[in-house]
Amino acid sequence: MRVRKRAGAPELVAAHPEFVVAEPTEWKGRWHERFGNDHPIHIEIGMGKGQFITGMAKTNPDINYIGIEMQISVVSIALDKLIAEEIPNVQLLHVDGSALTNYFADHEVDQIYLNFSDPWPKTKHEKRRLTSKAFLAVDEQIIRPNGEIHFKTDNQGLFEYSLASFSQYGMRLKQVWLDLHTSTYEGNIMTEYEEKFSNRGQRIYRVEAQFVSEEK
Amino acid sequence: MRVRKRAGAPELVAAHPEFVVAEPTEWKGRWHERFGNDHPIHIEIGMGKGQFITGMAKTNPDINYIGIEMQISVVSIALDKLIAEEIPNVQLLHVDGSALTNYFADHEVDQIYLNFSDPWPKTKHEKRRLTSKAFLAVDEQIIRPNGEIHFKTDNQGLFEYSLASFSQYGMRLKQVWLDLHTSTYEGNIMTEYEEKFSNRGQRIYRVEAQFVSEEK
Repeated sequence: MRVRKRAGAPELVAAHPEFVVAEPTEWKGRWHERFGNDHPIHIEIGMGKGQFITGMAKTNPDINYIGIEMQISVVSIALDKLIAEEIPNVQLLHVDGSALTNYFADHEVDQIYLNFSDPWPKTKHEKRRLTSKAFLAVDEQIIRPNGEIHFKTDNQGLFEYSLASFSQYGMRLKQVWLDLHTSTYEGNIMTEYEEKFSNRGQRIYRVEAQFVSEEK
Repeated sequence: MRVRKRAGAPELVAAHPEFVVAEPTEWKGRWHERFGNDHPIHIEIGMGKGQFITGMAKTNPDINYIGIEMQISVVSIALDKLIAEEIPNVQLLHVDGSALTNYFADHEVDQIYLNFSDPWPKTKHEKRRLTSKAFLAVDEQIIRPNGEIHFKTDNQGLFEYSLASFSQYGMRLKQVWLDLHTSTYEGNIMTEYEEKFSNRGQRIYRVEAQFVSEEK
């Protein structure tokens, strides 16, 4: 997601360590302590402006959400929502999504959301796609056994790539939606981007893909 | 596929045992003998009027094709093409696609095509879909280790179902096309149905799914 640089974003983020975790490596393996409960932990990699994760958090107060976003201006926009609504079960990480093992112990995460990830359409940029093999290997390390990735996109090429990538990694596709907004799927919470592009008539694709623990 | 009953179809079929195999169970395990060579054997389950399989056969003379179709009027239309063009590497089976182990020995088939299979949209008819678990089990029995199913459809619901069904069966999705006719895929041979519905602006979906031999 590209956004204009927001003046004062670093200062705003620094002023709210209760929402934007100042030292995320220190909480590795201890996120339940941080939240003060034993609820499941769901993370969104590439959270963007936070409409999805805050919507999910309000709908599911018994789940802890961690939004991960690299761009501080975007983090600050999501932070605005947490401050305004005092949402207790969301934490934000202003870090690079490729280094998640620095912040999460093995199998500490219960579920992963990827929404409208950058498609990186050129073949030479395949390794930057969040659904490519190396990213899935990191996801598998931090997620619980048989954990799931829930992925939405409007990008046809990225979705075609991702279905094959999940499958070739050995994940099972639990369910696939080729036009989410005309489907019977209930409870969809839209991202800012999703609202905009869906209004222009773009199809939204969705898949739930599950890691499969190897049988010993 | 529903077609009008064709007068004289049974007689035409009976008159051409060189193309429509009269006693298919007798060739189980011996299809290479029947073709008189050791070329790979590709089958199309639900061949319809035969435009796909005859087109494939002409493009790939070093592959043997077997078209399977239950409706004799439809078989007779495909037969017309074989007679007119004297295509040597196609054989037709006028049998029910659910009993394939009667006609093929274990691992005798190299590749399977499913094109525009009946979607059977009602949940109570799931077991009739050619991409449902029981059909895949039969396919796995007759196909070579790591063999592939290549599946095309314009039916969104059937494609969503089939991607998940292949995956949950343990197959790998090698590649997925969400709009085949606008893609870079080369060498597509259209079925009669595909020409008609594509001209009406319907998207054509395609997937190549591979059985995965269990490692011992």
